[in-house]
Amino acid sequence: MWELWMRRALALAALAEGHTSPNPLVGAVVLDAGGRLVGEGFHARAGKDHAEVGALRQAGTAACGGTLVVTLEPCCHHGRTPPCSEAVLRAGIRRVVIALEDPDPRVAGGGIRQLREAGLEVISGVLRQEALQQNRAFLHRIRSGRPFGILKWAMSLDGRTALPNGASQWISGPPARDWVHQLRSGVDAVIVGGGTVRADDPLLTSRGRRSPEPLRVVLSRSLDLPDQAQLWDTAIAPTLVAHGPDADPQCLPAGPEGLGLSGCEPLQLMEALAERGCNQVLWECGPELAAVAIQQGCVQEIAAVVAPKLMGGLAARTPLGNLDFSAMDQVLQGEWHQCEPLGRDWLLCWRSGI
Amino acid sequence: MWELWMRRALALAALAEGHTSPNPLVGAVVLDAGGRLVGEGFHARAGKDHAEVGALRQAGTAACGGTLVVTLEPCCHHGRTPPCSEAVLRAGIRRVVIALEDPDPRVAGGGIRQLREAGLEVISGVLRQEALQQNRAFLHRIRSGRPFGILKWAMSLDGRTALPNGASQWISGPPARDWVHQLRSGVDAVIVGGGTVRADDPLLTSRGRRSPEPLRVVLSRSLDLPDQAQLWDTAIAPTLVAHGPDADPQCLPAGPEGLGLSGCEPLQLMEALAERGCNQVLWECGPELAAVAIQQGCVQEIAAVVAPKLMGGLAARTPLGNLDFSAMDQVLQGEWHQCEPLGRDWLLCWRSGI
Repeated sequence: MWELWMRRALALAALAEGHTSPNPLVGAVVLDAGGRLVGEGFHARAGKDHAEVGALRQAGTAACGGTLVVTLEPCCHHGRTPPCSEAVLRAGIRRVVIALEDPDPRVAGGGIRQLREAGLEVISGVLRQEALQQNRAFLHRIRSGRPFGILKWAMSLDGRTALPNGASQWISGPPARDWVHQLRSGVDAVIVGGGTVRADDPLLTSRGRRSPEPLRVVLSRSLDLPDQAQLWDTAIAPTLVAHGPDADPQCLPAGPEGLGLSGCEPLQLMEALAERGCNQVLWECGPELAAVAIQQGCVQEIAAVVAPKLMGGLAARTPLGNLDFSAMDQVLQGEWHQCEPLGRDWLLCWRSGI
Repeated sequence: MWELWMRRALALAALAEGHTSPNPLVGAVVLDAGGRLVGEGFHARAGKDHAEVGALRQAGTAACGGTLVVTLEPCCHHGRTPPCSEAVLRAGIRRVVIALEDPDPRVAGGGIRQLREAGLEVISGVLRQEALQQNRAFLHRIRSGRPFGILKWAMSLDGRTALPNGASQWISGPPARDWVHQLRSGVDAVIVGGGTVRADDPLLTSRGRRSPEPLRVVLSRSLDLPDQAQLWDTAIAPTLVAHGPDADPQCLPAGPEGLGLSGCEPLQLMEALAERGCNQVLWECGPELAAVAIQQGCVQEIAAVVAPKLMGGLAARTPLGNLDFSAMDQVLQGEWHQCEPLGRDWLLCWRSGI
């Protein structure tokens, strides 16, 4: 019976998709003692009200004796905002309906325990699968200490991402390119390697769909980067140039922030980005970096746009470099989670089976 | 108002899919003077009754004053069977409803003309698009003098058809492999190059879904073929080994029929297979032969099975060899005509835009 309201709370949470990092997406509705909707709220971004607080404020005294339906267990710790569990008690709520326990070690069941001890009825696990899916990036970061990684590429039907001479603009059509801008608007950072900067001089923004724009990250072993590049113009969007210990920071281009890593590997970059509060990142790199990112467990999903074109070419670029498999039972298995047309192209979204 | 019956006639025609070459698929229904169904027929294979004749025989005297609904213009020439237009007149049919004019130069509107001259009402073009689609292979052969070519491959999401060491069994799952057997049951010949025989020793049958099995064809420049191969056992299915003028026919393996071509190219093979009555062929070859077949206009459709796997490997095999493009506006464009899941895999069917 609570699923209808939980669906509403999940929809509220989704309004802030891509904006809440390092926090999760959370939505909440408050029903009065008679079951009427009296408050709605969602967590808009870190530092802003938690969803429960906004919904309770909207409900006012009508919350007394009522029900709070919330997509994530209310927090019980002092962070940037006071604990929500206390606000729930103060409002006189009698029943709390939760989709998912908060895996944050500072909460992890503590919010539910506190509410139960105070005599409230707590129902947990309502639309849990949907809530897991909605917060998969946050949950992945909490579990692994690294952002959830999405790898994106566009290829021809014969699996080519460029012609033998490197030409690749454009493989996919305008609707698919719009969709990529939309995809970027849901992530905290977009990552390329130095080779992509040299070859394509990309802009890597959401074209204004997200404000602020996601952080643009270049992972460069050598810092052998062009003097002029669209990415160096940080008036449009912030840019971070990450490099390993062998590179000379003097070679950093003017404009972007530099970040020295202990090793120039995807894994070290992911850990640094998690520390900066990134829940989800998008890899838009070339085949070699993509293959290393996969091997180091930095890619959880792949969004492959397949154009109805044949490019051919034994020497033409493919989506992935070597993964060092020598038998078919070693290859990485996953499953489709979204396959649909994107204008004249076809989108195949893959999720790691691991 | 005739579409319902035409749909029935198209469904009857489809019962013989893959079996009528060099003839088209044809289905027919006969309605009596009161509009009641009194006869049905379809063309089962070359040399057997034409669809109209079977339907009229079933209708008997009830056809008198009635309507014939037929997917293709009735023939007006003596082939292996007498002209259908005469049978229609003899049966006393008053009205003929046709989906498509027969492009065969021996007919090409002659059947319709003869019926109109005899005073019958003729309605043409009912469900014409559906009829064009159903007989696209036959129509392509009549127009081009070559069979309609379908190229099939199975690849990982990253566009690989084998690992760097050549391992490729299995990329796709059992439902997709079943689907390939089904695909073979609808074609007249299945073609591979010598390399595929050497590397995979394939069977290339429909696993009994078609009787007789489609002709298995090996196109070999060198006739450098193994002594033992599943394809040489012609008790299971016929096999043809086609070769160019440079090869020594003494090197033909024991069992299969040999066919000397004036040049060892896809185009010459296609012309030879059209002469043998093939309307539709399936290319199941490696990337180099596939690329040449595409360049010579021998591929009209591609059925790509995409497995939710990542194989990687710069040296790994891809679906197509060089197509010699140097700019994105040169690449071959097409459109999807069928995209659907096949078990855990995804099927992307592409049709040439030319």
